[in-house]
Amino acid sequence: MQALTGDTGVAERLSDASQVADMLRIEALYAQAAGQAGKVPSELGEAAAKAIEGATIDHDRLMRAAAKDGVPVPDLVSQIKEQVPGNLHDAIHKGLTSQDVTDTAFVLAARDILESFEALIKAVVAACDDLDARFGTNSLMGRTRMQAALPIKAAHRIGQWRAPFADHLKRLNQLRPRLFKLQLAGPVGTGESFEGFADEIALHMAQELGLGMPQTPWHTRRDSFAELANWLALVTGSLGKIGADLTLMAQQGLDEVAMKGGGASSAMAHKSNPVSAEVLVALARDTALQQSGMTLALEHEQERSGTAWTLEWMVLPRAMENTGAALKTAERLLGDVISLGEPNSSKKL
Amino acid sequence: MQALTGDTGVAERLSDASQVADMLRIEALYAQAAGQAGKVPSELGEAAAKAIEGATIDHDRLMRAAAKDGVPVPDLVSQIKEQVPGNLHDAIHKGLTSQDVTDTAFVLAARDILESFEALIKAVVAACDDLDARFGTNSLMGRTRMQAALPIKAAHRIGQWRAPFADHLKRLNQLRPRLFKLQLAGPVGTGESFEGFADEIALHMAQELGLGMPQTPWHTRRDSFAELANWLALVTGSLGKIGADLTLMAQQGLDEVAMKGGGASSAMAHKSNPVSAEVLVALARDTALQQSGMTLALEHEQERSGTAWTLEWMVLPRAMENTGAALKTAERLLGDVISLGEPNSSKKL
Amino acid sequence: MQALTGDTGVAERLSDASQVADMLRIEALYAQAAGQAGKVPSELGEAAAKAIEGATIDHDRLMRAAAKDGVPVPDLVSQIKEQVPGNLHDAIHKGLTSQDVTDTAFVLAARDILESFEALIKAVVAACDDLDARFGTNSLMGRTRMQAALPIKAAHRIGQWRAPFADHLKRLNQLRPRLFKLQLAGPVGTGESFEGFADEIALHMAQELGLGMPQTPWHTRRDSFAELANWLALVTGSLGKIGADLTLMAQQGLDEVAMKGGGASSAMAHKSNPVSAEVLVALARDTALQQSGMTLALEHEQERSGTAWTLEWMVLPRAMENTGAALKTAERLLGDVISLGEPNSSKKL
Amino acid sequence: MQALTGDTGVAERLSDASQVADMLRIEALYAQAAGQAGKVPSELGEAAAKAIEGATIDHDRLMRAAAKDGVPVPDLVSQIKEQVPGNLHDAIHKGLTSQDVTDTAFVLAARDILESFEALIKAVVAACDDLDARFGTNSLMGRTRMQAALPIKAAHRIGQWRAPFADHLKRLNQLRPRLFKLQLAGPVGTGESFEGFADEIALHMAQELGLGMPQTPWHTRRDSFAELANWLALVTGSLGKIGADLTLMAQQGLDEVAMKGGGASSAMAHKSNPVSAEVLVALARDTALQQSGMTLALEHEQERSGTAWTLEWMVLPRAMENTGAALKTAERLLGDVISLGEPNSSKKL
Repeated sequence: MQALTGDTGVAERLSDASQVADMLRIEALYAQAAGQAGKVPSELGEAAAKAIEGATIDHDRLMRAAAKDGVPVPDLVSQIKEQVPGNLHDAIHKGLTSQDVTDTAFVLAARDILESFEALIKAVVAACDDLDARFGTNSLMGRTRMQAALPIKAAHRIGQWRAPFADHLKRLNQLRPRLFKLQLAGPVGTGESFEGFADEIALHMAQELGLGMPQTPWHTRRDSFAELANWLALVTGSLGKIGADLTLMAQQGLDEVAMKGGGASSAMAHKSNPVSAEVLVALARDTALQQSGMTLALEHEQERSGTAWTLEWMVLPRAMENTGAALKTAERLLGDVISLGEPNSSKKL
Repeated sequence: MQALTGDTGVAERLSDASQVADMLRIEALYAQAAGQAGKVPSELGEAAAKAIEGATIDHDRLMRAAAKDGVPVPDLVSQIKEQVPGNLHDAIHKGLTSQDVTDTAFVLAARDILESFEALIKAVVAACDDLDARFGTNSLMGRTRMQAALPIKAAHRIGQWRAPFADHLKRLNQLRPRLFKLQLAGPVGTGESFEGFADEIALHMAQELGLGMPQTPWHTRRDSFAELANWLALVTGSLGKIGADLTLMAQQGLDEVAMKGGGASSAMAHKSNPVSAEVLVALARDTALQQSGMTLALEHEQERSGTAWTLEWMVLPRAMENTGAALKTAERLLGDVISLGEPNSSKKL
Repeated sequence: MQALTGDTGVAERLSDASQVADMLRIEALYAQAAGQAGKVPSELGEAAAKAIEGATIDHDRLMRAAAKDGVPVPDLVSQIKEQVPGNLHDAIHKGLTSQDVTDTAFVLAARDILESFEALIKAVVAACDDLDARFGTNSLMGRTRMQAALPIKAAHRIGQWRAPFADHLKRLNQLRPRLFKLQLAGPVGTGESFEGFADEIALHMAQELGLGMPQTPWHTRRDSFAELANWLALVTGSLGKIGADLTLMAQQGLDEVAMKGGGASSAMAHKSNPVSAEVLVALARDTALQQSGMTLALEHEQERSGTAWTLEWMVLPRAMENTGAALKTAERLLGDVISLGEPNSSKKL
Repeated sequence: MQALTGDTGVAERLSDASQVADMLRIEALYAQAAGQAGKVPSELGEAAAKAIEGATIDHDRLMRAAAKDGVPVPDLVSQIKEQVPGNLHDAIHKGLTSQDVTDTAFVLAARDILESFEALIKAVVAACDDLDARFGTNSLMGRTRMQAALPIKAAHRIGQWRAPFADHLKRLNQLRPRLFKLQLAGPVGTGESFEGFADEIALHMAQELGLGMPQTPWHTRRDSFAELANWLALVTGSLGKIGADLTLMAQQGLDEVAMKGGGASSAMAHKSNPVSAEVLVALARDTALQQSGMTLALEHEQERSGTAWTLEWMVLPRAMENTGAALKTAERLLGDVISLGEPNSSKKL
């Protein structure tokens, strides 16, 4: 049910096709940078870069190879070389390892996606502001441990929904420099395969891609990726609280919120179901599980773990897609609220 | 990276398109059964059943509606009715609720998939038998807590790989009657919407579909689905041990196994990576997480939880696809073993 | 807050002290069985068994050693031998490995605990029966997706609470023969250390302990333990649904249940909080997480994994204690219900 | 097996007894602050504060009440009032709610514990530095996907172990101001119960306790606690990688590390098991699961969720104790390394 819980924007940006396009760009940039740094003749690097950019990738073949190799890069390089004159091969991929390419490609996608998430978070905050402006002075029965406690203003509950997102944006800014880094370390992560040109090549590539230079390679320390998953879990979790509250408020008997756009029932024409609110809770719970997978993937043995790497690819895209879906769902859902709380503070206990 | 960890067979059987086809079949069968039971005139039921089977579903519209309604059934019924003469509408879906249709459709898919899994398990067992026949008398260093302990025969380790699957097949047989049940309970799960014909209708449908009759409706008790997820986790977990052992045995220095079909490296031509063994471990770890989601979804409040239901759809198909991928990967991987252990029991400590 | 979510009965049965007592019993029984089987002279076995039973264990020393050895058995054997004449040493532990002792000890504890859980499940079912007898004919508003749907009888909701437990008892009976098995396999799990007497010794021990004989050793196939965790998760999950429903029903505005024994607030004297119902939900969610740990522990590499074994000890006792706490809490909570639903079926929509 | 995976320091700081002591301190400080702010007469506040500090708490009674109330504070306040002259009661707890007290008490404990963790992290880094100094120039076979790749220097692998901790310390500094905040919000989190003196009281208390002033109450936005759990998972995950590597390196056949202090086997005198390394992996995996629980607890409905709150108490202390145990274990384990890699770079492929 991709229609219900998926996010086509995120899915597209993380699709095999999109990632392969980034990988091609990285391979081309590497050839160019190797030329500029002097690892290969400058003209050779430029020519190879152009040739790589012009390569046509057989996607089905690539995916078959990826299923065997565990990663698409080896066949990607083969396909490039098959299309490029042999005299350019020295400038192609030599020194790189698959993980340099896939990690950097993922970082580029994550950067785009997080930029869209930042905008979506601001939209959710704005939707909360709007709710507050429209209904903040209304009364609600404050409820603790699911029991009527004391009356509150709607502004208080809305304020608790909104409050975490300011901190989520701070956290995002704090994690960005740890995440948006070039990976360039070679077969066993030591950088020796760049024959002394590692720093120059990395500098060129990082500047072109707008990424940071890592102080050390990060093939096997995946804390920046796990931190990303943790942030996604915080965001979806905060949205899950909004969803949970709205499902409760929409109950007949509490009648604290009315929303347009509810879901239809196949059996009961009178119903308008708070489907989107429920989806927010489901997305939060699912993301909590995916997050664990990224922590498990910190157990990245020796110089490269295919096990941990594969697990990352299973859980991190899902957590990202969940977050995109949750942010969009929340923004729409908050906009669908047509009443919240009671104009007069006469709510019964 | 669907190519690496996905299973197209399972994915296809659980696809929206495939599930919608089952839903159509169930709606048609319901109309027919309502006629045979006498809830509607027999001819009306037959005519409606035929009309439903002949309906053409606009899939894109259906998915857009599902995103709003939380479930595809309301729009599915609308699309059917739009294509069917009004005089048949009384025999269409009336009395049913969305969950009757989606649960029964999922059970049908699960039955097919579990049948294929049973065959795959037997193939994995046969692959273990074959390994045992080829290499069982060879020697291995028995290792406990990752340390050399005492020499063992290869047959012992292979036997530990194989042993759980006999019990997994027993568990499968034990869970089948709990899982393969018709869902027919109406809007709030009481069966009252069938106007006294619930048992006759259910009996007819269950016979036609080859499903059991539930003693009580199971809209909100989802233990049979959670039990399925638990079984999937046991199977992938047992395969994960095989994968973990093979990655260890393949290490240079231990050299206890050789496999053909290893993965290529983009940087190191001499490498043959045990990618499939690593994938088994990753699939096991991921399934352990999805399984938790099904237990969380047991918290299925009141008469129907959209939250829990949505979470099921996120995690259960993934656990099923993981299991299919793991079984196929394991069968192939075991067949790729070309040596295991040492012919002479002279393994150094 | 052991007071809130713990179960002292389960905690006590799984305590280090209680497990060590079982281990001593197993060591003694092994000595006796070795004598009866003829592995050592019969009198020697009997004398050693008596001596082991009379040994006094320095618990603090044992725990310090366990922290270093990863398991208490090596020092337990040392302590026994220090107190027993050297001529009996040949009958003590020789041939056994730590895991034989700890696994069998855990199985003995699990058997006792599961017996108590079976009784508690029956008590929960009886409490549901009692609720049904008292309030079953009352009306409730049936609620789907948290929205008023159609009126139902209280008996329907109570029936959904009760229904899974009959299947949980069936599952328990089905898993028992897989779980209640002696472990007797020696250092690397092959049974060779018993010098040809493995079967006779195992038969004697299994009979004395009332355990099954394993067809094969199960040092590294831990599916019976994972299956236990899965069962615990099903039970707590089913109880969590009861808790979730009760927290919702107790909301002012729904007013569908009244319970005595609610929790006090430090700030609001009018409140009676459904603390026990909330605890049921928390216990279910926590057990869902622990369950994953047992699936992860199926990745039990080579002939013994200290990693997986340690993880089992972290999560399985917790899942068991959660289940005991949840069962007792549920039984008490259901008994505390003093009204449920409305005598007249006039519930407003 | 608290001896193997527990941390008595953390357990003690988070014990019921220790938390109750903090709660008493907070209650006393509140009385004093209410006096200084003018909510009650200054002398009354001072006298009440002194009386509270002098109160003797019946711990068993408190825990029995906590099991019923879901939180110890209501009975704590009752016990205080029973020991204090009635004329002081107006200055005791009035305006506060249980969550103000327990959240602030937890934050105080977390601050102490995180201070100790910072020191332990620095000790782990120092242990890495020491390893590097002793063995960094030695050779290792670099291994990718568990296969021999190319030789590396030991310094490279050690460097990958150490690198994340610098970022973990940065993350800790970044999360501190979000976590170390006073909670003071009253029954429904609005601060109205402080009768206009909320800011003055909070300021006084925050200064005395060395905590930050929250911009808004945080009863129901628990992201700072979830962020803490995420950080703990990152730390244990990074330590888990060290543990995993060491178990692999210690294998006979690889022989890349030797460690003193290994665990004894009850059956094989020649063994020295890398128990501590295995424990690190188990602690990391377990913490990954507990972390999910904190994300689930972000679903903190309405103005206070007993469900989410209870879940926090189950998983967060465990994650903290795991982290303390892992840090201490890692520091000791790294110090126990007596050789690592080969002096000559002649490692066979």
